[in-house]
Amino acid sequence: MDKINVGLLGFGTIGTGVVEVFQKNGDLLQERLGLPLELVRIADLDITTDRGVTVDPGLLSTDADALLEDPSIQVVIELIGGYEPARTFVLKAISQGKHVVTANKALLAKHGDEIFAAAESAGVNVMFEAAVGGGIPIISAIKENLCANRFHSLFGILNGTCNYILTRMADDGDDFETVLKDAQEKGYAEADPTFDVEGIDTAHKLALLCGLCFGTSVDFDSIYTEGISKVTALDIQFADAFGYKLKLLAIGKMDNGEIEARVHPTMIPESYPLADIDGVFNAVRLVGDFVGPVLLSGHGAGSEATASAVMGDVVSVARDLVTGCSPHSPAMACPRSVVRDLSIKPMSDIVSSYYLRFFVNDQPGVLGTITGILGKYQISIESMMQPHRHEAEAVPIVLMTHEANESNIQAALTEIDRQDVIQGESLFIRIENRLD
Amino acid sequence: MDKINVGLLGFGTIGTGVVEVFQKNGDLLQERLGLPLELVRIADLDITTDRGVTVDPGLLSTDADALLEDPSIQVVIELIGGYEPARTFVLKAISQGKHVVTANKALLAKHGDEIFAAAESAGVNVMFEAAVGGGIPIISAIKENLCANRFHSLFGILNGTCNYILTRMADDGDDFETVLKDAQEKGYAEADPTFDVEGIDTAHKLALLCGLCFGTSVDFDSIYTEGISKVTALDIQFADAFGYKLKLLAIGKMDNGEIEARVHPTMIPESYPLADIDGVFNAVRLVGDFVGPVLLSGHGAGSEATASAVMGDVVSVARDLVTGCSPHSPAMACPRSVVRDLSIKPMSDIVSSYYLRFFVNDQPGVLGTITGILGKYQISIESMMQPHRHEAEAVPIVLMTHEANESNIQAALTEIDRQDVIQGESLFIRIENRLD
Repeated sequence: MDKINVGLLGFGTIGTGVVEVFQKNGDLLQERLGLPLELVRIADLDITTDRGVTVDPGLLSTDADALLEDPSIQVVIELIGGYEPARTFVLKAISQGKHVVTANKALLAKHGDEIFAAAESAGVNVMFEAAVGGGIPIISAIKENLCANRFHSLFGILNGTCNYILTRMADDGDDFETVLKDAQEKGYAEADPTFDVEGIDTAHKLALLCGLCFGTSVDFDSIYTEGISKVTALDIQFADAFGYKLKLLAIGKMDNGEIEARVHPTMIPESYPLADIDGVFNAVRLVGDFVGPVLLSGHGAGSEATASAVMGDVVSVARDLVTGCSPHSPAMACPRSVVRDLSIKPMSDIVSSYYLRFFVNDQPGVLGTITGILGKYQISIESMMQPHRHEAEAVPIVLMTHEANESNIQAALTEIDRQDVIQGESLFIRIENRLD
Repeated sequence: MDKINVGLLGFGTIGTGVVEVFQKNGDLLQERLGLPLELVRIADLDITTDRGVTVDPGLLSTDADALLEDPSIQVVIELIGGYEPARTFVLKAISQGKHVVTANKALLAKHGDEIFAAAESAGVNVMFEAAVGGGIPIISAIKENLCANRFHSLFGILNGTCNYILTRMADDGDDFETVLKDAQEKGYAEADPTFDVEGIDTAHKLALLCGLCFGTSVDFDSIYTEGISKVTALDIQFADAFGYKLKLLAIGKMDNGEIEARVHPTMIPESYPLADIDGVFNAVRLVGDFVGPVLLSGHGAGSEATASAVMGDVVSVARDLVTGCSPHSPAMACPRSVVRDLSIKPMSDIVSSYYLRFFVNDQPGVLGTITGILGKYQISIESMMQPHRHEAEAVPIVLMTHEANESNIQAALTEIDRQDVIQGESLFIRIENRLD
């Protein structure tokens, strides 16, 4: 072997970053590998838009199949995103004996079982560091150096758009819609932000992390997913007053052979390790039985950071090719024959502390009504705040509970919302007091 | 191959942790590898002390050579520490065609060139994740997923003993000697703490990180190394008043083909990512040209976290053996043929901001004398504080400078210390305002 040929499917933002790594750091990669790594084909439906990088026009084509059928290409980078045609292309690359590097969390969260099985049969790599946490080397950390651990839990801030919006809401006191609009104008949020702000993107990433950490296949549709669109600036201010920060957390836990896998706005104490991960930064905190807590943080998105992750995977595949071994590590950290099929605990069974916010008529006895119902459901209160009193208007009451069962919380809130003194629907936000 | 046999040299604290990983997570490792990983021999001069783990007495021996010559052993874990006999044993393991996993930063910082050359010739791995940052997967991150980056800089808090002492000094206001004594009683500091508190252990780790990040061999003796024993609680309080925290930082920078590699007490703004790494935690912040800043933190020492790192390396070696490839990655991230020999910039050439602390006679004109001399050496002042005025006693004056050349600072302080109004020797601490 005198060089390694790479084909790129998808010449968008990250694809452009990948081209830049080849151009700026190709010499470095060659030194590290001992032979050249060459980008020989790029396929995209749009090959005319100026991406700000100069590419030999001969590399560009709209024909993905020609790239996938090119026998000289050993590694295919898939940066198309979405389910189709990405799934078809990835499976075709595998069937052609090519190694695949992808940033496509949606694809792997939904069709990972099919793709990883095909790759294992074909003896090729499917690597996906860029799918979670942008440039943060979290996937390889779990698969490689932390692999002697049984993981208890993982906590991730995995969506830069949400984290940017929540940070701005906290800093400026603006409401969700206002900040979202600004984020869209700045290019930090998509025109249709649903995947990001409703937590779906985070849930895709959590599915992959849970699979890796807990050695299980994860049914993506079983992951409880709640986004940030109902969070108000008022809740963030209350959180602050209680010493908490509000983050969209991906939470994975292993509990007696059952896993928790959930994505929702979460309050964490302001002194906790993830509390100061602000703006577009991402971070993951893992807790393993030997390593204890480990935190990795960095740029969770962006062309350059994500390209770093993609190219790290390409080098890993190239090292497999250079050293002549079959895939050095299984795609999901263990061979598919030992992948478990653990079920995800229903949300009604989880135990958490809760932030509860009500709008009530400002009249005597209201608090007694609320606490009476909470008591009936074995929910005990840690602290209470009733900060803004405006005569004749609805006033907020905020309670922080001790640990309670989610089904009890739901039942209690349903009953409380039926009371005449309660205005509108109450809101609850889960609290993580122990990141272990 | 139906199993992989491992030999352990050194049955101390970390060795005990390694035995525990084999015992508690052996099934997990077997699942991930597809075959058993077995600890078949343990050699230590002391095989009678109870380590709190039950080991088959047949595994234990005082004869390291018998272990090194056992043809059934494919992987040797070296946890003896220090230069000799560790060096001899590691070289012998390599010459026997065995892969080596070690936590020995002192050995590799001093004799790495010899050991890595021998390993490359023999086609075996020398892996050392546990040598830097305890359980934090920093070495593998640099070698593997971040390897497409050119690194600009690295900043590390790499010694738990120093960080614990500085954290306690900051929290309790106690002086170095008091906290050190307490740390020794608690087992957080050695009876002879020189290697830790004088920065030597940190410098060993920095040598390895600089080699990996900048693709160069590093002359350990050229690393400027200054420990924390001269830091006073007063300086930490002043730092706090200026909005800074004091840490023992390992600093590596690439600057026009010359590297900076230095270890010294450093003030960093309290909002900076490393500022809240407290107690026995370690952290490393790297800045790469594509990935941008990445931070990894976790337990920097301790039996279990370090054993996690050791066993992660053992699994990596085992995967090489299972997949039948020669070492998957070069020990220092690139083949030895392309390792550079960059020189370390002399300290007199570095540019930094500085914290300067003088004790002076409390009389008019003193500040003018000091600032006059600083001005003569092109050192400009950002802020000044003269907090405690006690009649007839020496009073402290503290200055924070803008960026200045270290040789100018040294010359100015020499001249200032000669003035009659100055009592004792002045002190300076470098400031990092930009962790990029």
